Amino acid sequence: MPLILKAKISLMKSFASDNYAGVLPEMMQALNNANAYHARSYGSDEITKRTVAIFRKIFDADVDVYFVFNGTGANLLSISSATQSYNAVLCADISHIYNDESSAPETITGCRFFPLKANENGKLDTPIIQERLIRKGDVHYPQTKLVSLTQSTEYGTVYTQEEIKTISNLCKEHGLYLHVDGSRFFNAAAALGCDLKDISTSAGVDILSLGGTKAGMMFGEAVVVFNKALSEHIAYKQKQIIQLASKTRFIAAQFEAMMYNELWRSTASHSNKMAQLLHKTLLKYPEIKVTKPVQANAIFAEIPKHWYEPMQQHFPFV
Amino acid sequence: MPLILKAKISLMKSFASDNYAGVLPEMMQALNNANAYHARSYGSDEITKRTVAIFRKIFDADVDVYFVFNGTGANLLSISSATQSYNAVLCADISHIYNDESSAPETITGCRFFPLKANENGKLDTPIIQERLIRKGDVHYPQTKLVSLTQSTEYGTVYTQEEIKTISNLCKEHGLYLHVDGSRFFNAAAALGCDLKDISTSAGVDILSLGGTKAGMMFGEAVVVFNKALSEHIAYKQKQIIQLASKTRFIAAQFEAMMYNELWRSTASHSNKMAQLLHKTLLKYPEIKVTKPVQANAIFAEIPKHWYEPMQQHFPFV
Amino acid sequence: MPLILKAKISLMKSFASDNYAGVLPEMMQALNNANAYHARSYGSDEITKRTVAIFRKIFDADVDVYFVFNGTGANLLSISSATQSYNAVLCADISHIYNDESSAPETITGCRFFPLKANENGKLDTPIIQERLIRKGDVHYPQTKLVSLTQSTEYGTVYTQEEIKTISNLCKEHGLYLHVDGSRFFNAAAALGCDLKDISTSAGVDILSLGGTKAGMMFGEAVVVFNKALSEHIAYKQKQIIQLASKTRFIAAQFEAMMYNELWRSTASHSNKMAQLLHKTLLKYPEIKVTKPVQANAIFAEIPKHWYEPMQQHFPFV
Amino acid sequence: MPLILKAKISLMKSFASDNYAGVLPEMMQALNNANAYHARSYGSDEITKRTVAIFRKIFDADVDVYFVFNGTGANLLSISSATQSYNAVLCADISHIYNDESSAPETITGCRFFPLKANENGKLDTPIIQERLIRKGDVHYPQTKLVSLTQSTEYGTVYTQEEIKTISNLCKEHGLYLHVDGSRFFNAAAALGCDLKDISTSAGVDILSLGGTKAGMMFGEAVVVFNKALSEHIAYKQKQIIQLASKTRFIAAQFEAMMYNELWRSTASHSNKMAQLLHKTLLKYPEIKVTKPVQANAIFAEIPKHWYEPMQQHFPFV
Repeated sequence: MPLILKAKISLMKSFASDNYAGVLPEMMQALNNANAYHARSYGSDEITKRTVAIFRKIFDADVDVYFVFNGTGANLLSISSATQSYNAVLCADISHIYNDESSAPETITGCRFFPLKANENGKLDTPIIQERLIRKGDVHYPQTKLVSLTQSTEYGTVYTQEEIKTISNLCKEHGLYLHVDGSRFFNAAAALGCDLKDISTSAGVDILSLGGTKAGMMFGEAVVVFNKALSEHIAYKQKQIIQLASKTRFIAAQFEAMMYNELWRSTASHSNKMAQLLHKTLLKYPEIKVTKPVQANAIFAEIPKHWYEPMQQHFPFV
Repeated sequence: MPLILKAKISLMKSFASDNYAGVLPEMMQALNNANAYHARSYGSDEITKRTVAIFRKIFDADVDVYFVFNGTGANLLSISSATQSYNAVLCADISHIYNDESSAPETITGCRFFPLKANENGKLDTPIIQERLIRKGDVHYPQTKLVSLTQSTEYGTVYTQEEIKTISNLCKEHGLYLHVDGSRFFNAAAALGCDLKDISTSAGVDILSLGGTKAGMMFGEAVVVFNKALSEHIAYKQKQIIQLASKTRFIAAQFEAMMYNELWRSTASHSNKMAQLLHKTLLKYPEIKVTKPVQANAIFAEIPKHWYEPMQQHFPFV
Repeated sequence: MPLILKAKISLMKSFASDNYAGVLPEMMQALNNANAYHARSYGSDEITKRTVAIFRKIFDADVDVYFVFNGTGANLLSISSATQSYNAVLCADISHIYNDESSAPETITGCRFFPLKANENGKLDTPIIQERLIRKGDVHYPQTKLVSLTQSTEYGTVYTQEEIKTISNLCKEHGLYLHVDGSRFFNAAAALGCDLKDISTSAGVDILSLGGTKAGMMFGEAVVVFNKALSEHIAYKQKQIIQLASKTRFIAAQFEAMMYNELWRSTASHSNKMAQLLHKTLLKYPEIKVTKPVQANAIFAEIPKHWYEPMQQHFPFV
Repeated sequence: MPLILKAKISLMKSFASDNYAGVLPEMMQALNNANAYHARSYGSDEITKRTVAIFRKIFDADVDVYFVFNGTGANLLSISSATQSYNAVLCADISHIYNDESSAPETITGCRFFPLKANENGKLDTPIIQERLIRKGDVHYPQTKLVSLTQSTEYGTVYTQEEIKTISNLCKEHGLYLHVDGSRFFNAAAALGCDLKDISTSAGVDILSLGGTKAGMMFGEAVVVFNKALSEHIAYKQKQIIQLASKTRFIAAQFEAMMYNELWRSTASHSNKMAQLLHKTLLKYPEIKVTKPVQANAIFAEIPKHWYEPMQQHFPFV
């Protein structure tokens, strides 16, 4: 059985996770700056307000923004704001939310999570979504209410604006919400060479988990709400699912710095390029088979089994 | 697309569900008898005590018994007594618990329910169970704690004692509990010509949902606990998940009558035989294809599409 | 310390609970009648439809009706249909929902239940409700959304139409729903000599748990929805909280019989009168002090401690 | 009605909350240091291991330590690890967990939270705890399993070792766990002039929420587990309730710095002293009435109503 090597490269010192990397110098600076004075807590401070205003400009929409602690928090705040406990959520069988968040999704939202077979590039195709749009109004069956995509995907591929629009249209047709788990959203936008709004606002996304931690922040993600119908409960849910930071300004400040002069783009482009470089280098080794298109900052490769141990010693990958 | 005809025949007046049938005369009699005097509530009455004693004899074990309102209640009381919210439950993809109980399983237990591909006879094979026994101790992944079988299965087939033992052994080896959703458990035992204990106590089952409603009762199921490790929380959980009847004696009385002279066997055998009779008759019609072995009281058949409407008028099946 | 004797008298054989009594002959008859033929399940049968139509006439409103298994089920279906998990429910500190349903209210709804000090007659006064209407919009505090009254109260007293209206007006003013836990609602209406609608529809109640079990049914309660805003989720929630009976007709049939010629009134009046008779008799004994007004079918009395044991032997009260 | 002024003074620029203050320079330094290299995620890094070892030394016990995002997270991780959903938690009616965490405690744990009347100093007395130790084994009533104290209390007072021991002994006698919400635990130890272990390990505490954020960290709290019986589920629960940081090292590093040379003590002592200084100054103003003993870093004072507006402008207190 071949090894699946997930080399998600930020600063390229191991192959395990972009979590292993630390914090960008610009983030440390932003944190220092944010520490200059007293400030109101729980998001009513000036930095948070300023950053929300920046988000509205960048996403070119009257979005609501909630800064949370981590990726699972962002995903579950998004989903719990959009669902009732009798609802179902459709996600890819390989998705982070289905494979790496324990049963928190079920416990926190009460919903059924249906794992849909992702295509070979790790994406959801519309036919497989449509297959599950059954038994509407049947109280004996979880009522599908939300589709969750991952951008970039768990295979390191990227949904185009067109692909998202197709799914979004299907969602609208059936009264479903479209959520994007964007823990590597910056990498996706950098790979596509597009603006953040192009694959969110303009693609019909209802709510977005915008990742900070894997992008080089110390901690923090943002939930961006495009569809005002999702705003009714979300502020209360944030507190309830333990995702409201008292010193919110230190999350907001990092996002502000990340948005300044599109720092996110240069950083994400760099790690995307490092993945390309690694890919190019790997092509020289016939023993290695790269199994997925390299589009963002992840490479999936099969390597000879006897390489595992020596590699593990130099570049831990588990 | 062929029709899947589910003919679960008790008294054979429709093809929709054994729920459509009413209540056995012996049950009505038992309910009348139980109404003769005042009695303590919430299961501390004499009838309930007597019936529990009968269960212990029949199952040849020091079982605990909890009488609940319905099948979903029996399943979720069983599972919530055996799990923590971070656990996973393995069940067949075609199982009732996955397809016909809304997202109540997730909401009530908090657990992930993994739908395992049932084999062509609607049963779980051990290899497919083993495939999911991964990532033990990994906090990011739901920790499998329980396997849930359906007896007889949703395809009308029956697990043999040997088949259950095989799964039970696998469970013990991996520290998992084995639950049986026995909403048609009487039909299974009747089909196998065995005692109730043979496919529960002697087969290594930890906890059983023993079905009453579909067997001809007015309402009521019994949760039978074989493994004392599951007894710690169950009485409290029964109240908590709203499955404790104040006049419990009226559920117990029906089970007492059902056990008397093995009434369950004659009743279940009758409906099993009616299924056989129907099957035999269907064989004369080349247009009809019976797709699953007919073992208990259900027949799965493909019939010509233009038969739907006339059949629906005489024997409703949706 | 004086004993609080709760003599809830239906047929007067013990002092413990009206649950101890069995089932009215008219209920047994109704159950027998309902068993005459096959019927659709889960409430889509003719008896259920007929009974809902009767409810609409009696309550003089386009109510939705959901038949459930027991009182906790009725209360929690009502409340979970009206609330989000970040909400608070206001109830009396002596209420059944706060004292006798384990922590099921919290577990099932996620809400905070604030126990408000009932007045000496076991009722909620408006000032004590108003005291809790604080911190609206504050995400750090449970947001009050529903007030729950008990009719007749846990002290055996009865809210008048006027008293309910006063609370209902307060609720409307503050955007709250008014729920009535009416497990002894028939006793209340009989005591007041009014119609069922007078203390529900005409009093501004939003949702009612209408008790059957304590009124002489074998099992079953009805949730009556007056406010259509509460109808959006309720059918799904009923399945989810395990309160959807497959043979719903056997609950509906009992309610149909209970409504026929106002059987509820003659039955409830009888037990109310028995309470009055007992009260009158108790007045002859100076050792006994009746502590609450006797209005429905409960008497609260302090009796000499040395009477406990002999009384307990003849008329169990614990 | 007099104003209750909560002056929780860290760096004394407002009267609203110690959250308004920023981050100690030593914490910023620790965060910078922790950023020097790549590290394993989710707490398996070297800094986290090192800090846990330091905790074991300081608390003089083989404690388990879980670093979480915020105070509600620490409290609910503690409580959910110690309880089943049918349990009750006893806490003070003025406690943060009852008043400032929405209904997250109920939603996340499922438990009933009984608000016990705190004494005039904001503490729980044992008689009021004992009053609630009723109906043990009664499935209809939430089963008390845990007592939660706040140290320092919400009134700025401090439990002595002796007071905690008394409650702890009562807990042990009744099979209850003792939890301490120590969001200002450092202030309490500084006020008492004792070691951290004196009011935890040596006082019979089972599990402690050790506050970092209000003590001058950017974010982060530690759950310290003294009773190994609470360790079974806690690692899984941490993930489940969304309190597992991928870059855990940045929380651990702050605690490491806080423990170094007892930085916590000098910092907490300073803010305690500032409270004393303010108190002393206030004594000169006969219009001001300080209502609670000033022991840690909070002052509760009644001030003339016409002072509100001018004060609010200079030192915001809401």
